Amino acid sequence: MSVKSPTRRLADLTSEEIATWVTSTSVMIQPLGAIEQHGPHLPLSTDLVVADALSSALVDQLGDELDLWLLPSIAYTKSNEHAWSPGTIWLGPETMLAVLGDVGRSIAALPARRLVIFNGHGGNTGLLDVALRELRSAHGLLTFLVHPFVEPGAGGDALEVEAAGGFHGGAGETSMMLHLRPDMVRLDRVEAHVPNWLNEYEHVSFSGTVGFGWLSDDFGPSGVIGDPTVATAELGEIFVRQSLERLGAALAEIARFDFPA
Amino acid sequence: MSVKSPTRRLADLTSEEIATWVTSTSVMIQPLGAIEQHGPHLPLSTDLVVADALSSALVDQLGDELDLWLLPSIAYTKSNEHAWSPGTIWLGPETMLAVLGDVGRSIAALPARRLVIFNGHGGNTGLLDVALRELRSAHGLLTFLVHPFVEPGAGGDALEVEAAGGFHGGAGETSMMLHLRPDMVRLDRVEAHVPNWLNEYEHVSFSGTVGFGWLSDDFGPSGVIGDPTVATAELGEIFVRQSLERLGAALAEIARFDFPA
Amino acid sequence: MSVKSPTRRLADLTSEEIATWVTSTSVMIQPLGAIEQHGPHLPLSTDLVVADALSSALVDQLGDELDLWLLPSIAYTKSNEHAWSPGTIWLGPETMLAVLGDVGRSIAALPARRLVIFNGHGGNTGLLDVALRELRSAHGLLTFLVHPFVEPGAGGDALEVEAAGGFHGGAGETSMMLHLRPDMVRLDRVEAHVPNWLNEYEHVSFSGTVGFGWLSDDFGPSGVIGDPTVATAELGEIFVRQSLERLGAALAEIARFDFPA
Amino acid sequence: MSVKSPTRRLADLTSEEIATWVTSTSVMIQPLGAIEQHGPHLPLSTDLVVADALSSALVDQLGDELDLWLLPSIAYTKSNEHAWSPGTIWLGPETMLAVLGDVGRSIAALPARRLVIFNGHGGNTGLLDVALRELRSAHGLLTFLVHPFVEPGAGGDALEVEAAGGFHGGAGETSMMLHLRPDMVRLDRVEAHVPNWLNEYEHVSFSGTVGFGWLSDDFGPSGVIGDPTVATAELGEIFVRQSLERLGAALAEIARFDFPA
Amino acid sequence: MSVKSPTRRLADLTSEEIATWVTSTSVMIQPLGAIEQHGPHLPLSTDLVVADALSSALVDQLGDELDLWLLPSIAYTKSNEHAWSPGTIWLGPETMLAVLGDVGRSIAALPARRLVIFNGHGGNTGLLDVALRELRSAHGLLTFLVHPFVEPGAGGDALEVEAAGGFHGGAGETSMMLHLRPDMVRLDRVEAHVPNWLNEYEHVSFSGTVGFGWLSDDFGPSGVIGDPTVATAELGEIFVRQSLERLGAALAEIARFDFPA
Amino acid sequence: MSVKSPTRRLADLTSEEIATWVTSTSVMIQPLGAIEQHGPHLPLSTDLVVADALSSALVDQLGDELDLWLLPSIAYTKSNEHAWSPGTIWLGPETMLAVLGDVGRSIAALPARRLVIFNGHGGNTGLLDVALRELRSAHGLLTFLVHPFVEPGAGGDALEVEAAGGFHGGAGETSMMLHLRPDMVRLDRVEAHVPNWLNEYEHVSFSGTVGFGWLSDDFGPSGVIGDPTVATAELGEIFVRQSLERLGAALAEIARFDFPA
Repeated sequence: MSVKSPTRRLADLTSEEIATWVTSTSVMIQPLGAIEQHGPHLPLSTDLVVADALSSALVDQLGDELDLWLLPSIAYTKSNEHAWSPGTIWLGPETMLAVLGDVGRSIAALPARRLVIFNGHGGNTGLLDVALRELRSAHGLLTFLVHPFVEPGAGGDALEVEAAGGFHGGAGETSMMLHLRPDMVRLDRVEAHVPNWLNEYEHVSFSGTVGFGWLSDDFGPSGVIGDPTVATAELGEIFVRQSLERLGAALAEIARFDFPA
Repeated sequence: MSVKSPTRRLADLTSEEIATWVTSTSVMIQPLGAIEQHGPHLPLSTDLVVADALSSALVDQLGDELDLWLLPSIAYTKSNEHAWSPGTIWLGPETMLAVLGDVGRSIAALPARRLVIFNGHGGNTGLLDVALRELRSAHGLLTFLVHPFVEPGAGGDALEVEAAGGFHGGAGETSMMLHLRPDMVRLDRVEAHVPNWLNEYEHVSFSGTVGFGWLSDDFGPSGVIGDPTVATAELGEIFVRQSLERLGAALAEIARFDFPA
Repeated sequence: MSVKSPTRRLADLTSEEIATWVTSTSVMIQPLGAIEQHGPHLPLSTDLVVADALSSALVDQLGDELDLWLLPSIAYTKSNEHAWSPGTIWLGPETMLAVLGDVGRSIAALPARRLVIFNGHGGNTGLLDVALRELRSAHGLLTFLVHPFVEPGAGGDALEVEAAGGFHGGAGETSMMLHLRPDMVRLDRVEAHVPNWLNEYEHVSFSGTVGFGWLSDDFGPSGVIGDPTVATAELGEIFVRQSLERLGAALAEIARFDFPA
Repeated sequence: MSVKSPTRRLADLTSEEIATWVTSTSVMIQPLGAIEQHGPHLPLSTDLVVADALSSALVDQLGDELDLWLLPSIAYTKSNEHAWSPGTIWLGPETMLAVLGDVGRSIAALPARRLVIFNGHGGNTGLLDVALRELRSAHGLLTFLVHPFVEPGAGGDALEVEAAGGFHGGAGETSMMLHLRPDMVRLDRVEAHVPNWLNEYEHVSFSGTVGFGWLSDDFGPSGVIGDPTVATAELGEIFVRQSLERLGAALAEIARFDFPA
Repeated sequence: MSVKSPTRRLADLTSEEIATWVTSTSVMIQPLGAIEQHGPHLPLSTDLVVADALSSALVDQLGDELDLWLLPSIAYTKSNEHAWSPGTIWLGPETMLAVLGDVGRSIAALPARRLVIFNGHGGNTGLLDVALRELRSAHGLLTFLVHPFVEPGAGGDALEVEAAGGFHGGAGETSMMLHLRPDMVRLDRVEAHVPNWLNEYEHVSFSGTVGFGWLSDDFGPSGVIGDPTVATAELGEIFVRQSLERLGAALAEIARFDFPA
Repeated sequence: MSVKSPTRRLADLTSEEIATWVTSTSVMIQPLGAIEQHGPHLPLSTDLVVADALSSALVDQLGDELDLWLLPSIAYTKSNEHAWSPGTIWLGPETMLAVLGDVGRSIAALPARRLVIFNGHGGNTGLLDVALRELRSAHGLLTFLVHPFVEPGAGGDALEVEAAGGFHGGAGETSMMLHLRPDMVRLDRVEAHVPNWLNEYEHVSFSGTVGFGWLSDDFGPSGVIGDPTVATAELGEIFVRQSLERLGAALAEIARFDFPA
């Protein structure tokens, strides 16, 4: 059972308070966003908005119970697949590994043993996988990676139009934004760009057995990979709720997870 | 005369909008905070809170007139002078140069020519001086550095008690926080730690001719360098107002500044 | 239709021959192994042996048809999860990114456009995902990642004992080695170490939604994660055959894969 | 009270002598020059000449009294603002941080605790500010930064013509060179290039509150920023004498400076 | 007297076996090849073929007696002098230093104290000289560098035609390949390209007192530096035999070499 | 035939003069010293003193004839073999490669095509060999490496006592210093430390076929490798004279050296 802090945002505490309240049971949560093109209908900040909204909600709801501490978001991450598009601001992989290494080294100076990367941008995943191990190896931290994605099967048949790929500016992300920040969605600019040409490949595909290097303009000039035309706020509400449920359960596990002695 | 955008937060636009609205007259503003100990009475986020509050106010007020665009804040910067204190999260100098280089490289892909670093953390200054030149040299950007500091002479005699040094958790910073976020100030933990022993040095001092390398615990275990006991919300209001006035005038200059052809 | 070269091992050609025979249809295949502990019954070279055997077989079989060219294997890769164990020889992530960057830069000087990383070591996956994008971005290469893994469902019920995790020195790898190099398997040292304690977690698991950073000794001192006691050469023959079938089909796709113009 | 060494140039001692004579009271002085364009009338080596002359004079005069040790000069430093001009030889910021880090690591192996950077090139200042802290943090050294600049008010009205900026090849530097090395000044090539256009800016200026990134050719093709036409050897004698007086007093302070226990 | 291992290839052992069999007397042998143009008559893999053949022969013959352990070959090394030629795959110097540093750090975790770099590519020599010292300094290893070169005077007058330089694709290398892998030599493409123009220089030459930086196309477009037309399998047999004799004696020395206590 | 400059020290010119006088025939000479222990009888600066004296003499004598330009010396280089001894100030290999890369990049901006590294410290050799090629490859410079060493056979039998190794603080270096700077030699501290134990090795030796990594304290605590007791000023005069003769001839070759078109 952790302390009842007036806030669960770590940076809003003083050093003295942190020295008192952060203990070996504390779970640090580092949200990562991205500032990258999201097609003509979503803002550059989409991944940051989603990561912030969901991580905040989770910490507000479960912080005291699970001893969660929310760290300040990192807005700029590894978005080089969108470097071609105006406004994308991205870190190279060496820079981002260095940032994560520095953050981890700082966290490891506290008694907390658990660090959760709350990642809003799918393009970071490979690098974060590397970082999880680096931080465990260098500092002995227990490290975890979670994403606020759409649950498989959520929304019924709605996402079937995106079978070939719908993960950037598509129905899921657009629905979540319609729920969280409808003011930020340019509904008049919503267009479908599902890479159905990928259906002729069985192995080389987003869900196939062959990974492939891509930049988002490999899929055309719109920057969208998916079909936002089927997005609705109602779907978004479902996606967010189910994601929060899963993530809440995941955090409960993380808070008690440990390797055998 | 710039466009009338519904928002002046760059990341809330789409790529298409940026392609339309960001032009050679646009001024990009990158706020930098810090997550570092600020004594027993101020939160780790103090520099971030101040930088965010003032940069937001300026862009809200002058954005359309001066074609200003606010970038997402960078919370973690070079706070290694506070590395000893629980909760400080800091980037090493090579990491931070890399981050600024990546941000500048991304901005330089736009037609905008002016980038303003809006720096809330004094400990970044030397490194930012380096970065200003690197970004000018590498990308041809016009680069600027501004700080939301207390104006000389502001507040009358109030700050005289800090003649030997009052720049970390002292009267200025504490007053501004009392004005901006009084809920974040632990008034019962306010203690003076003015390094009056520095008075025996003429050259080696914060305002002297000899620079010196220091860590904040060189000044004692409290982490404060200054006298927050004289801080008031009224002073804070003055400091913030005067800082905004100066910064507004500075941004107006920056918006028209150019080197002779 | 590609040339009929006397060999499909690129390094066995001369520069003149490469200038003639390597064209825009050529597919370069870079095997990656690892030199890392594989428990008490398998040699350090296991991943290298498997990657070499399967990539060679595929190039021998399909090289002329698909215009495949086999590059020399890289034996040392990112095995830091096994750094604790005698004999593991590993590259740090920055080193390995640099090696892959240098190899890609060299390949990009040829007319070939396709580079396949044939990865024998699962621990490389995150980093390779990063590298695929880096090489596509820096050089315009079409980049792919394949693994010689056991097909889902292969071997019937045999692998059910490893439901909680069987990917290091377990039934699959041991069976493949029993088929490929039975002389290298120390059958008297085969012991099961299935992390069944993971069953109490739903989210934090190898196939769950929460990634986690681990070192192989987090699972105990044997270094095995899996149950090699159920391994047989017959299973190995099946696993290798099915893997070759899938990889052959995958390479055929890769050879014709391209993004829409 | 320190030893009476036959020389105060550290590199002219043997290792044995250093082991005997360098103690915890010793002050190491590292001169930095620059090899960079200084307009049509001053040699590339100007900053090196000045730094060498003044640091040598100070160590000759005060070495035994203050236990000063002069290190060999570093000629090449961070002069990228002059990279455009023939003959400028410059280190990038990462290189120079590495050099200073290596020098500091070497010095820290001695019992000496104080390291003074004696910096002849203003363009290094930001980076040196970073380095002072890095060396204090990494090695516990007491680190200091001094410059041989013209004292405020020195020379009466002579420098008023340079109110808008006179720090590169201007009256101060040219006068000092006329005093120290008149043979090196091309008097027939002396031309004024004061950036009076800066007067229309209040905030963006060399003495203003807004830092700005500049390259020396931003001020025109001559490379001069200042008015060397008013330079005289007499002024130079005054500037050098006053600078030596100030620096001597500063070194006396540095020799006794320490943080409270 | 060392153990009688069934194999002397380290990577074919298990971790347990290594923990038992590798001791402070063990000598680790790391072969380095190169994948680089070798003229129109030799394959890119020439240096790798030679290094592998000779290191394997030596370890097979002397492994038990001298406690030698063969590490997996590194195929890609620093071949930037051949970067211009199709198929050359090369590491930059920073990358290669990092690779060798990582390998040495891994080896240093074992009780073995001796590491021999068995270098098949002359272009690596300077960098390896650096690495030998780095690994000794960082880890206390005894480090050695050997090359399988043609002994001085071997082959009688045959190599006199190459007095001006015969070290890349010349008589020595071609003869060794004719002996080791005659199937890999394109005899119909053998042409002499001896840089006799170097004879007009006394100091600047391959055996002179002035080192000089060169790329292999500085000597003409063929990529050969030497006269392979005089190469024969008989010479190759002599060269390989004499090289093995010398290297065997050298390894015997290495196995007992140590610095005075 | 080059211009008749009043000085051949490049840094003593102005940018304008360099633009006029430095041409494609100009040869840049970069002296490298070292600040490292040289035994109990020679100063740390020995390598710098020798390199400066000889390079200056050569440029004074041959500068106009051969169009030589002397660059400012670099005092600190890669002396990590002496890191254990008080006062040694050394750059790591990555730092030194970066410094040389930055210098070369700066030189390459001039019309000069020839850069000579005039290296006073043998321990730099491997790294400089790497740098010669890097600078040729990156910038197209013709790069050369020369050393002011004792000629083979110079001084008759005097150096025979050093057959096993005499290259650090030994008879050659000490004699040259007795000739050049007798005031710097502590004659009462001269002691012989010839590593005669190396005589039992044929291959592993300074002149043998096996390179080996060593630190200078591997040869004992004095830091000397050689026999300075036989050093005399007369020998020093001979060594310096012969070295100058050879180096003068070498520079004449370098000035006309070029690769065939």
